[in-house]
Amino acid sequence: MSLIVQKYGGTSVGTIERIQAVASRVAESHRAGQQLVVAVSAMSGETNRLIGLAKEIDEHPSSREMDVLVSTGEQVTIALLCMALNNIGIEARSYTGGQVRILTDDAHGKARIKEIDSHRLQDDLNAGFVVVVAGFQGTDEKGNITTLGRGGSDTTAVALAAALEADECQIYTDVDGVYTTDPRVVASAQRLDKITFEEMLEMASQGSKILQIRSVEFAGKYNVPLRVMSSFEEGPGTLISLEEDDQMEKPVVSGIAFNRDEAKLTIRGIPDQPGVAYKVLGAISDANIEIDVIVQNVAKDNSATITFTVHRDDLAAAQKLLTQIAADLGAKEVDADDAIAKISIVGVGMKSHAGVAAKMFKILADEGINILLITTSEIKITVVVEERYLELAVRSLHSGFDLDTSVA
Amino acid sequence: MSLIVQKYGGTSVGTIERIQAVASRVAESHRAGQQLVVAVSAMSGETNRLIGLAKEIDEHPSSREMDVLVSTGEQVTIALLCMALNNIGIEARSYTGGQVRILTDDAHGKARIKEIDSHRLQDDLNAGFVVVVAGFQGTDEKGNITTLGRGGSDTTAVALAAALEADECQIYTDVDGVYTTDPRVVASAQRLDKITFEEMLEMASQGSKILQIRSVEFAGKYNVPLRVMSSFEEGPGTLISLEEDDQMEKPVVSGIAFNRDEAKLTIRGIPDQPGVAYKVLGAISDANIEIDVIVQNVAKDNSATITFTVHRDDLAAAQKLLTQIAADLGAKEVDADDAIAKISIVGVGMKSHAGVAAKMFKILADEGINILLITTSEIKITVVVEERYLELAVRSLHSGFDLDTSVA
Repeated sequence: MSLIVQKYGGTSVGTIERIQAVASRVAESHRAGQQLVVAVSAMSGETNRLIGLAKEIDEHPSSREMDVLVSTGEQVTIALLCMALNNIGIEARSYTGGQVRILTDDAHGKARIKEIDSHRLQDDLNAGFVVVVAGFQGTDEKGNITTLGRGGSDTTAVALAAALEADECQIYTDVDGVYTTDPRVVASAQRLDKITFEEMLEMASQGSKILQIRSVEFAGKYNVPLRVMSSFEEGPGTLISLEEDDQMEKPVVSGIAFNRDEAKLTIRGIPDQPGVAYKVLGAISDANIEIDVIVQNVAKDNSATITFTVHRDDLAAAQKLLTQIAADLGAKEVDADDAIAKISIVGVGMKSHAGVAAKMFKILADEGINILLITTSEIKITVVVEERYLELAVRSLHSGFDLDTSVA
Repeated sequence: MSLIVQKYGGTSVGTIERIQAVASRVAESHRAGQQLVVAVSAMSGETNRLIGLAKEIDEHPSSREMDVLVSTGEQVTIALLCMALNNIGIEARSYTGGQVRILTDDAHGKARIKEIDSHRLQDDLNAGFVVVVAGFQGTDEKGNITTLGRGGSDTTAVALAAALEADECQIYTDVDGVYTTDPRVVASAQRLDKITFEEMLEMASQGSKILQIRSVEFAGKYNVPLRVMSSFEEGPGTLISLEEDDQMEKPVVSGIAFNRDEAKLTIRGIPDQPGVAYKVLGAISDANIEIDVIVQNVAKDNSATITFTVHRDDLAAAQKLLTQIAADLGAKEVDADDAIAKISIVGVGMKSHAGVAAKMFKILADEGINILLITTSEIKITVVVEERYLELAVRSLHSGFDLDTSVA
């Protein structure tokens, strides 16, 4: 008998009718002989309603009390889902994070799971119950309620799957799988049958929003096979797992990720000296501004140029800081540009294929697209281009790397 | 330093503004040097909203899951109240029933408190925190969430006061105290400064809805002084405590309770034999119909007459049953009357005063009010009269026992 953890997000449980539809799907799996643990989010809109109440009182409420407040959202869903399951003849039991217990650290609002006590759940599973667990929440050593932060329900599901040594962790969402790229930009984008944890991580970190990065990391670390599926349609979804070497013709590029949330800053003519990168980037980090791509070059006159990207919302603050730093270091100038887009091609196939980067640059050059920045990792090549070229670049790369037809 | 438990019901915390008003009141007590534990209900309307969601799924949902669902109502309030307290500079910490922990039996929806672990609360109080506890809820031996049933927040407050050996338990509500009778019926009704547990129990069981009977029983059992106060106005409220013998002129009657929820059934001409009362009333009880007043007489011909009252909603069912019983026992006739009202005069002073009953009957006779039934207990005399005489009877008794002016 296989043990499956299923996770349903806020949209999938957004109304009573949808909760009943989830119950039917769970019942189907249960009747097919699977042992089932179901992790759920708050009904869509509920978390924001609760946050709204808190903000009426205090713009920055206590994070401990915020967790007590918002954790009620999933608690409502687990009870309703169990009722819907009972109503169609499936015995089910609900558990809050504290009841399981899902032990976390005490970082309210962004807690990390340390340990899950799976005994009680295992007993219920053995007795034939479907177990329904509140996602997104846990309890610290002292019994205080904690939350894992937005999207934390995915992490709950994966952690439960790891603790219970489940055969698969199925994440039900509003898309039917992971695509080669965003179908809204490239109509010929293809659903992938399989993708590796590494690839998914790179896709996620580059703007593919289907899964939370932490849950993919977690799944990779404990080797929990993850499957992304649609709550609303039938279909096999996309399986995310360890790389398998049995594929004869592994595609070089599995997918193309992109985003336009970032802005680029450049500081030029910094007298080169040890520690320059730290002086520049450390000050930005200290201001809690997250830095993404970083590139440094040294010019003929030995002066250094550092370019980096930050979230567009942080551009004004970062530019102000950088102007001060430039003055302190005796640098020549500071440039800012927020009309940029970041595009990454991702694929474990790159590890064993030469010339992938050259091919990427040629495809872009053929379209007359100027590359502003390049960084590479083992399974990913990222470029920054002018924002107006984004769609053209993604479409050209999608067809240039044969993704219009291939299914990995 | 005195330790006070305060309880605020759903209307008192029904909006963000009211929660902020409660916070101000709590802050005032805290700044006056009191240690404070605050028990709260769900925001008014919230429990019904949650029940509505459940009923959309199942008219009779699992009671275990119902408790998981509705217990979120108080959890929202404790978090918001702590935020409101923090926002005006008072350090506060919230606890769910499970976190305290308030250990109950496993009777979901109507659980009874078995034990309260007050260590953590006491530590917080000693450290200067205001402690905010979710009313109405607890946890059973296995860690399942339980609820105490409607009105259970009063019981939570009293139980916390008993466990913490608090100096007083203050129940904040929408009235400013306990009155000699319902001011909507008798304009000259007076707020009582003091009343005994026994009197309050009799008042409550006779239809005065200010406090739940269980919470008064609990307070009496552990001798926790209870004070009923208004959430919306200043004032001393009414203190409910053990009888004190130091009052020279204790009023004979403290208050007049009444209700018109009942109907009267009479079975006449039952051949008298042992066990007749059981045969009649046992069958009614077995049908889960609650019986209130019972009176039995024996007629000259040795046939028995039994009269009793039930809730009006149960009249039809009870009458049908009684007609069958009458046939079985060979009784002569069955009468039913739902145009009745029950009136009780209550007062510990009756214990030491003769002639109270006679005075009551004379007052009613002087007004030409016929008494249909009489029962008495040590501190209460109850009569049933025709419903149309209710207001006249209550007003006459109120003035006849000098309640228009006296304050106990």
